[in-house]
Amino acid sequence: MAQIAIMGYGTVGAGVFKTLAMNSEAIARRVGEEICVKSVLDLREFPGDPAESVLTHDFQDILTDPEISVVVETMGGLKPSYSFTKQLLMAGKSVCTSNKELVAEHGVELRQIARDNSVNYLFEASCGGGIPIIRVLNNSLTAEEIEEVTGILNGTTNYILTSMADEGKDFAVALKEAQEKGYAELHPEADVEGWDACRKIAILSSLAYGRHIGWQSVPTEGITGVDKADIAYAKAMNCRIKLLATSRREKEGTWILVAPMMIGRENPLTAVDGVMNAVMVKGNAVGTTMYYGSGAGSLPTASAVCGDVIDCVKHRGITIRTEYSTETMQLLPVDEVSRPFFVRMRGDEQAARAAFGSISHVTRLEGYGDELGFLTDTMSEKTFKELLSKAEGVISWYRRGKKEEEEA
Amino acid sequence: MAQIAIMGYGTVGAGVFKTLAMNSEAIARRVGEEICVKSVLDLREFPGDPAESVLTHDFQDILTDPEISVVVETMGGLKPSYSFTKQLLMAGKSVCTSNKELVAEHGVELRQIARDNSVNYLFEASCGGGIPIIRVLNNSLTAEEIEEVTGILNGTTNYILTSMADEGKDFAVALKEAQEKGYAELHPEADVEGWDACRKIAILSSLAYGRHIGWQSVPTEGITGVDKADIAYAKAMNCRIKLLATSRREKEGTWILVAPMMIGRENPLTAVDGVMNAVMVKGNAVGTTMYYGSGAGSLPTASAVCGDVIDCVKHRGITIRTEYSTETMQLLPVDEVSRPFFVRMRGDEQAARAAFGSISHVTRLEGYGDELGFLTDTMSEKTFKELLSKAEGVISWYRRGKKEEEEA
Repeated sequence: MAQIAIMGYGTVGAGVFKTLAMNSEAIARRVGEEICVKSVLDLREFPGDPAESVLTHDFQDILTDPEISVVVETMGGLKPSYSFTKQLLMAGKSVCTSNKELVAEHGVELRQIARDNSVNYLFEASCGGGIPIIRVLNNSLTAEEIEEVTGILNGTTNYILTSMADEGKDFAVALKEAQEKGYAELHPEADVEGWDACRKIAILSSLAYGRHIGWQSVPTEGITGVDKADIAYAKAMNCRIKLLATSRREKEGTWILVAPMMIGRENPLTAVDGVMNAVMVKGNAVGTTMYYGSGAGSLPTASAVCGDVIDCVKHRGITIRTEYSTETMQLLPVDEVSRPFFVRMRGDEQAARAAFGSISHVTRLEGYGDELGFLTDTMSEKTFKELLSKAEGVISWYRRGKKEEEEA
Repeated sequence: MAQIAIMGYGTVGAGVFKTLAMNSEAIARRVGEEICVKSVLDLREFPGDPAESVLTHDFQDILTDPEISVVVETMGGLKPSYSFTKQLLMAGKSVCTSNKELVAEHGVELRQIARDNSVNYLFEASCGGGIPIIRVLNNSLTAEEIEEVTGILNGTTNYILTSMADEGKDFAVALKEAQEKGYAELHPEADVEGWDACRKIAILSSLAYGRHIGWQSVPTEGITGVDKADIAYAKAMNCRIKLLATSRREKEGTWILVAPMMIGRENPLTAVDGVMNAVMVKGNAVGTTMYYGSGAGSLPTASAVCGDVIDCVKHRGITIRTEYSTETMQLLPVDEVSRPFFVRMRGDEQAARAAFGSISHVTRLEGYGDELGFLTDTMSEKTFKELLSKAEGVISWYRRGKKEEEEA
């Protein structure tokens, strides 16, 4: 029997407790032994809860218990999770986490400490909830040169954008409804400003390209500026506006970006709606692959944490070998990246051409007066922004996810 | 440096050779050592090919070479691949294969032999080409009770059905074009009769539910009877006809089936077109997940084989622990499964109701005279077939993939 502990009995921590109980038989069959929760650490009390009998308020109970070999960290934040995780790894215990903030901030160091102590620091649940994308990158697509990772990695913003698109709502209304339904937090900045997706794409890209990418260096734009008119234009052009977290390896270097983009049917992510998440990974041999599932939620996220716990139990005393570099990757500035841009501006086609050169997909919407939407030719972001700074009457603009020529 | 051999230098075998060379740097970085092809076994000659210098016609060269620790089997068929694989495993060499026929037929025995000899028999490439679905089931969704596995697992039939749907072609015309483009073989029976998908769903279901499922016990229907009119009705009802390979664990037992089915937008597989494959896996904690990619082709399939080779090199002397049972699963007869059915028949609504009871989604197509299409209520297949045997004027029928009530 393997004994584990859970630190943080919130949504995900309680989900881990529940999943291990609910599926104990299947898990024991696959691991070859039972997995049992010996301690749950939380400052609160949980009278009447199934975890009540194993609840502790003292971290030392877990740190010093020689029977506990794996610890689940579902506390979130950096304090005290960073210090706790470090101490546990140094005490020879593996740690499994859903804490993307900690992984993005201190993952490199914590993985090194795990390695030095022949244990594991696993974080499948930190990106994409129940989607097993970390293990796919670490253990499956190992024969690939990864060329692109693009994901819809935040359920809150995808829910808001979907409800704006499907029901024609304003951003503020859609956000309020998401909050009422529990899909958005009272303080939604981390989601709607793109910071959550930013941390996740930094983690995934580090694994995909084998070099560390600090989340601080990821250019990040949120969705607070997305107007329902923008979405109406996208729809008229047979597109969707999605918050994409994307990184791509090009000849000149690798770039990374989180921003709302306009994508069309050529992109399998276009159909990913509501709170669902998906990650597209392109490799030079396998081509385009995609992984889809619940990006959040108690049980889906818990399922990913439990998968990590199982891996730790199966690998006691062994650090699972994965590609790993402490070296930080030099990123290509997004200014250098070329693509078409969607522009919405007041005026006529002649003015649009005068400002942006050759344009296509010119679209006018009823009820929007003398404005129009269109796509520019493919150009570097630097060039586009130069044109933009001189253009008059521009209301909004978005990056088009992919060249039109590549469509169909 | 790890030395390996490749048996069978056809499309996939040559792809493995190419991928290992093309991505040697990335692979060495991830494995910690280089992987080098020491021998390629094929009866043919390949003058001028990069593999020429390591070509052998004698299996003994590989079997008796102590330096070769991993062997790729991309010969296909059962003879001599079964005997070769057995001998290699018994000689302490791991084997990685794309041969679904061999895995479906002798996989249980070969895995046991691998285990007895502390080596591995891996077959990621046997199902879904480049989609890492085997590793997802074995190593990622390990905390789940899997409830359903449904896939579009055959690229040839999906290409044909897509081209029938998008271009209104007859089956015969679509098949001929698929053959001309190299997407269908000259003898396409294994694909169009559903046998290929049948072997794959038997393998995936065995892994998902932890008991052996013989491919011979999978009720299998192909797509040769699909008429372009059937597809037109599906379209009019906002559905697609797809060859689904599916298994589901219900309270009463587990059933499995390969058949063309009508699915709607509620099912993420509906959007999977052309030669692409996808597998949907539902677990009781994680919910619905989906995995999408190239189901065939030289490099995507090779990528999956190479991933297995890398896993074998990383686990020298250790059998990777996966759930595994030699016990055969008792299956629920498909007759017991309840769902709505699509029926296309001559006559009017009154006749349809007289034959099948309450009906919905009644559809008439221009140019198809006095016939109509409709959905029955949810009923067991047994009940449906009893009604069918008494009904007059039925032209065709399909299983509807999911209850209408569950839509949206």
